[in-house]
Amino acid sequence: MNVNGRRYRTIWLKETDHTVVQIINQLALPHAFEIIDLRSVEDVRRAIKDMYVRGAGLIGAAAAYGMYLAALEAGEGTFEADILRSAAILKNTRPTASNLAWAVDRMLIKMVPGTSVEEIRLVAQAIADEDADSCRRIGLHGAEIIKTIAAKKKGEAVNILTHCNAGWLAFVDYGSALSPLYAAHDSGVKVHVWVDETRPRNQGASLTAWELGRHGVPHDLIPDNAGGHLMQHGMVDMVITGADRVTRCGDAANKIGTYLKAVASKENNVPFYVALPSSTFDFNMRDGLKEIPIEERDAAEVRYISGKTKSGAIETVQICPDSTSARNWGFDVTPARYITGLISEQGICEASEQGILGLYPGGTRT
Amino acid sequence: MNVNGRRYRTIWLKETDHTVVQIINQLALPHAFEIIDLRSVEDVRRAIKDMYVRGAGLIGAAAAYGMYLAALEAGEGTFEADILRSAAILKNTRPTASNLAWAVDRMLIKMVPGTSVEEIRLVAQAIADEDADSCRRIGLHGAEIIKTIAAKKKGEAVNILTHCNAGWLAFVDYGSALSPLYAAHDSGVKVHVWVDETRPRNQGASLTAWELGRHGVPHDLIPDNAGGHLMQHGMVDMVITGADRVTRCGDAANKIGTYLKAVASKENNVPFYVALPSSTFDFNMRDGLKEIPIEERDAAEVRYISGKTKSGAIETVQICPDSTSARNWGFDVTPARYITGLISEQGICEASEQGILGLYPGGTRT
Repeated sequence: MNVNGRRYRTIWLKETDHTVVQIINQLALPHAFEIIDLRSVEDVRRAIKDMYVRGAGLIGAAAAYGMYLAALEAGEGTFEADILRSAAILKNTRPTASNLAWAVDRMLIKMVPGTSVEEIRLVAQAIADEDADSCRRIGLHGAEIIKTIAAKKKGEAVNILTHCNAGWLAFVDYGSALSPLYAAHDSGVKVHVWVDETRPRNQGASLTAWELGRHGVPHDLIPDNAGGHLMQHGMVDMVITGADRVTRCGDAANKIGTYLKAVASKENNVPFYVALPSSTFDFNMRDGLKEIPIEERDAAEVRYISGKTKSGAIETVQICPDSTSARNWGFDVTPARYITGLISEQGICEASEQGILGLYPGGTRT
Repeated sequence: MNVNGRRYRTIWLKETDHTVVQIINQLALPHAFEIIDLRSVEDVRRAIKDMYVRGAGLIGAAAAYGMYLAALEAGEGTFEADILRSAAILKNTRPTASNLAWAVDRMLIKMVPGTSVEEIRLVAQAIADEDADSCRRIGLHGAEIIKTIAAKKKGEAVNILTHCNAGWLAFVDYGSALSPLYAAHDSGVKVHVWVDETRPRNQGASLTAWELGRHGVPHDLIPDNAGGHLMQHGMVDMVITGADRVTRCGDAANKIGTYLKAVASKENNVPFYVALPSSTFDFNMRDGLKEIPIEERDAAEVRYISGKTKSGAIETVQICPDSTSARNWGFDVTPARYITGLISEQGICEASEQGILGLYPGGTRT
């Protein structure tokens, strides 16, 4: 992705020293663009745990690179024990993120005796490359939907609403929900994005707005409360969000608040799409509302907000009375019946078991 | 209403000096409880304009007291001209608030030659008293709905979601949406309130949470994004909001985001009530979506948030990139078909022309 004219991924090996993993510090965005060096499994653990990196695809890639650093750190006589300990440490950083365990396991099965550190590095890079390529292909498929809408708008911008950040910052590159927007914009289609600020962590305001700005895609930040009003007045042509987990029947868990937008979309006949790489499907689950576990996070995320003061310092402020308690569920589930279609790197399908199995015969990831 | 055991209204005449109007400074809440003296029409103008006082009923009462101060200020030979100038100044503070012009006009028709300043003061006090009494009666009617739900919950708390602040801080006392909760709570019904923080101005986090806390009503602050998830999981028994304007057919304009909660309520069979004093009805309008003007406010309210730092100072922080533009519609319209019922001081009715005309024969305020 472009940042002020230069091409970036969210994670990479340092060009001059392949034993160092570099990441963009997402906690500093949007007020500072910082690159951080990760030199050990402990560095990677802290980066995932404290959310210097976040987003399904990026967490997976970070864990893969973390396992490569684990191989560098492992003692000659204790290689297997050291590697397994590192794997457990990385998996435990964010237990609900499915990509994390998936990436660690995919590294482990290649880290058999006799495999060189160089070969292990290539596996981690392949996981990152694959994530970027899946997202690129999601963009190509999704852009076709945007182009179809654009054809009816007679030169007016296609207004697309998105919630949270499912952009390149959540993956290695391109993103899931935002990839179609970038592809459409780059091919000359006029798009305009309504960016939900996405309380409580404000990933829309801090990450999506920043991404779109760097890439030059027209957009406006709105409170999460505004989307229904915009839909009622014909100011939203489509909604695209990412997903944290999608069941084999098409129910989608995503950032809290997604469901409210999906319900309003259906009421107002606004197409509602969910974009995801294959790794986000959970073919073992059917009923998302009953089966997908919803993480409850720290109430402090609701009670406090961070930002930049007039003097340029980063400050945290409390927005409620001292004695007020808060609750903070991280995700909600949008039942399949509200979803117009799913966009994966394999193509576009109906959010239903039949639709999904059409893209994934046998109900397995490719 | 009770604040730390003492009874308050939001506006009153100073006990020791009836030429001074006193208000609670709502800009300082929830971090400080400050009382401000208003000694002139200019003081009242600034208090309304800069939102030291806000909320339909309270703005009306403030304007009424402002007209009383206008009578005190008016010159003997220029009484009529001075009064009319003050009326225009007060009406222009917030042109979309219907209670404001209504209260000023109601004062004007009593300020005929020969009326004493004492009599004028009594009219202003009557307007304030009437606002408080209407809200008290809304509470009695609405509490019956809560009691009916409580009877089915077998001792468990009735979970009520509310959006924005339609409590006593928005009126002279009691409030509209919160009045039924206070009445139910005071009569021993177990209630628990989900307080939408209500971005962008956070009236839920700063005012509703504070009010409920002072009165001892159990509550939790939630992001505006959470309500749908709670409804899907049976954790909301009813929704009550206030309204800024309700048409003769029952369409209700209220704080932006109300519509999303109303749509989700209908999807999940959660009763959705709108509470309002008679003064909020607009019998001249039918189709709220087409006819009710929606104010667009300063984008800065979306881009910045204020709160209390760790050191206790009040600070404003920017939550998005420097270059990000934002849009900020203050209200949305919930069509009558999503509203289970309207609660006014006259009683409870269906949100329809027939229902409303049943409470207001002839389509006029009482």
